[in-house]
Amino acid sequence: MSARFRESIAAAVGAGQVRDDEEALTAYAADALGQPHRPDLVVLPDSTAAVAAVARLCTEHRVPLVVRGAGTGYTGGAVPTRGGVVLSLERMNRILEIDELNLLAVVQPHVINGDLQRAVERVGLFYPPDPASLETSSIGGNVAECAGGPRAFKYGTTKRYVLALEAVLPTGEVVRTGSKAVKNVVGYDLTQLLVGSEGTLAIITEVTLRLLPKPPARMTLSAAFEEVRQAVDAVTALIARRVVPAAIELVDADSLRAVESYVGRAMVPAGSTAMVIVECDGMRSSVDEEMRLVVEACREAGATELRRAASDAERDELWGVRRQLSLALRATGLLKINHDVVVPRGRVPQLLDTVADLARAYRLRVASFGHAGDGNIHVNLMVDRTDDDELRRARQAERELFERVVALEGSISGEHGIGFAKAPYLPIELAPEEIALMKRVKAAFDPAGILNPGKIFP
Amino acid sequence: MSARFRESIAAAVGAGQVRDDEEALTAYAADALGQPHRPDLVVLPDSTAAVAAVARLCTEHRVPLVVRGAGTGYTGGAVPTRGGVVLSLERMNRILEIDELNLLAVVQPHVINGDLQRAVERVGLFYPPDPASLETSSIGGNVAECAGGPRAFKYGTTKRYVLALEAVLPTGEVVRTGSKAVKNVVGYDLTQLLVGSEGTLAIITEVTLRLLPKPPARMTLSAAFEEVRQAVDAVTALIARRVVPAAIELVDADSLRAVESYVGRAMVPAGSTAMVIVECDGMRSSVDEEMRLVVEACREAGATELRRAASDAERDELWGVRRQLSLALRATGLLKINHDVVVPRGRVPQLLDTVADLARAYRLRVASFGHAGDGNIHVNLMVDRTDDDELRRARQAERELFERVVALEGSISGEHGIGFAKAPYLPIELAPEEIALMKRVKAAFDPAGILNPGKIFP
Repeated sequence: MSARFRESIAAAVGAGQVRDDEEALTAYAADALGQPHRPDLVVLPDSTAAVAAVARLCTEHRVPLVVRGAGTGYTGGAVPTRGGVVLSLERMNRILEIDELNLLAVVQPHVINGDLQRAVERVGLFYPPDPASLETSSIGGNVAECAGGPRAFKYGTTKRYVLALEAVLPTGEVVRTGSKAVKNVVGYDLTQLLVGSEGTLAIITEVTLRLLPKPPARMTLSAAFEEVRQAVDAVTALIARRVVPAAIELVDADSLRAVESYVGRAMVPAGSTAMVIVECDGMRSSVDEEMRLVVEACREAGATELRRAASDAERDELWGVRRQLSLALRATGLLKINHDVVVPRGRVPQLLDTVADLARAYRLRVASFGHAGDGNIHVNLMVDRTDDDELRRARQAERELFERVVALEGSISGEHGIGFAKAPYLPIELAPEEIALMKRVKAAFDPAGILNPGKIFP
Repeated sequence: MSARFRESIAAAVGAGQVRDDEEALTAYAADALGQPHRPDLVVLPDSTAAVAAVARLCTEHRVPLVVRGAGTGYTGGAVPTRGGVVLSLERMNRILEIDELNLLAVVQPHVINGDLQRAVERVGLFYPPDPASLETSSIGGNVAECAGGPRAFKYGTTKRYVLALEAVLPTGEVVRTGSKAVKNVVGYDLTQLLVGSEGTLAIITEVTLRLLPKPPARMTLSAAFEEVRQAVDAVTALIARRVVPAAIELVDADSLRAVESYVGRAMVPAGSTAMVIVECDGMRSSVDEEMRLVVEACREAGATELRRAASDAERDELWGVRRQLSLALRATGLLKINHDVVVPRGRVPQLLDTVADLARAYRLRVASFGHAGDGNIHVNLMVDRTDDDELRRARQAERELFERVVALEGSISGEHGIGFAKAPYLPIELAPEEIALMKRVKAAFDPAGILNPGKIFP
């Protein structure tokens, strides 16, 4: 990186928004994937104009530009694998507007998901997307990755809530996509194209989100089962009964053991090895009606215990435990190779059979949990990081997992995206002409190829 | 069009799939906009391979290629304004799969919306998008235009239900986007980019749709009001009560008069000039609870009459009347200049004030109706086609309507798209750099610019 480029950046945005001290270069090197690459420069812009100035200079000087939200991604999307500038949006962190009449919110990218949820719930509104990282991840990052979460079963993922974006192109133009109207078919839907584009097409500087009325009632239930297969049967039975809970989550034996050891108490009765968490929401009367069907389905599938969260505190605790699953697995000291494969919703049994096959064939510990109702299961290969042979077997198992998921007409990622961690596997799912088409779309936004290079594409 | 090109097409797809007789050239010249342009050739392919062969030849010979669904569009999207080939997908009309376990359907593009709805409802499933044209429009056309309809208030428009597409690029490659999994963040979301792209990016040859469980109960109510303002107040009151009906529709005085004369009976009591139709669906108990709130809101706003559809037949009849509004307005003999503007949902009062202003200022009859809950109102300028001055005033009013809708942070089209009818007005809503970006995206799909040329862009 040339001294002239550094000076141009500082002149454009002010020296107070630029860092290249050792501490910054280390702090902005990694995300939750844990494979750091140091940037050459960190810029902390406080306005769209500053973002545009940085983008323009990066294109002009052909310097890689990597946008960073809260750094909670699992696939290295915010990591500057080719050096260059990390543009952290942490100073653009304000809720600009909560519009009760029009049921929408306008936010800067670095508003934390949980903060937004609480702010809109205070006025009786509701923002459904709830990734496990909701207390740390930012709306901008959620949009860039199309974050999901348990409530996606009923409410869909982030993309369903993004009405409009302000975004800066890598060439420095500021564009607006969509509008505050909930329907808009004017030109191409660039809003939805940007959602989930992993910071490779444009830099999102403002997000307009559709909100829902907050459901007046919620009820959460956990069910324990002796066998994971029974837990999956319960999920299938629920869907067959045409119930639409807000969330249907599954936790397997290894995940349960890890979380029990992490929180220091038993989550299920002795002899049970799997848990399902179901939440229903809506009008009070329909919640009761749905819960009755949920209980029926769980009993038929052989639940050993059914527990209703009796209070909001109990409900929050149950979801708290669910959200700590990743931390609990990390706390085992093993390397957690984390995948978020997804299959058509009825094929979770085949997916779990596949995972069991792979665990046996490659002699691996595997902990699985996640969004069973959506067919989206977090499959964690738990590997002794000092054991090279085990690491090698894990890499083989991973590739075979992806191949078998695609054979089940699923997808190699339902939530985390590709980043650089999964880029080598993209051709398992996409044909060469599909990848070529995506690259042409990328070039339409980023002709110089400076924005988040080395991500998504192999 | 050269003889050599005609021969190549016939050789590629078989002479039985090609027509250039007078009848065909006339029949495939227009859609519901009513401004015909004759094609040079009509091709009726029966397979994706045939579609790909035609696309490849059109790109090679630089011949315009216009894809046609059922021809029910209001903006001329299926009209070959520059001649060339019309590719009608009418022979690709099969439901390939209704998958109850995975809650999805796979269909060829020319399946009629209403036929699909009935087929999935027979097995307890539900496909929400319900454009007024549902008995005549095709799923492929619905996807190309991102069709909406009354139920979009609760259920969203077509885009929310498209999981995966098979599409043929103008250069002849066949690509697949998305998957049968409900979550998929692998690469760019080309599925959503194609939805609503008005046949300008690729030719959709297969659609995989997400389905919902059919709501066990439905209840429909119509409310009459003396003034349209009271009807809008009822809608606002409903939304403020945080009720989420499936549909909230508004019908104004001129629309009521037209439909009453068309169906030959009164729809509202004497002295009433506006109607609201509300449908609630879901669990039986919550439908009752919601309807209670709906009735409360309508009474408070001053409803002169409330009528519940007591049976399915009454319900179907009420919706039948609503769907005939466009026909009823046409039956007046006046030219119906049909717009589908949309504003943020709380701004319908301002939109109706705007329409009243314009009617006064330009001395025009205007009939408005539509999806009040979504802020999406069909504004119909009713013009004597023999009166040139009135036509001129209507064109002025139309431009001002678009400008004022955009000033209300809305959009010039919520459902019908741009086609060629609205292309001149695109710059009212989109900035030059946004249009330029969209054109680069277009070129990424269609380097020769042969697919539906002259549409969307001014």
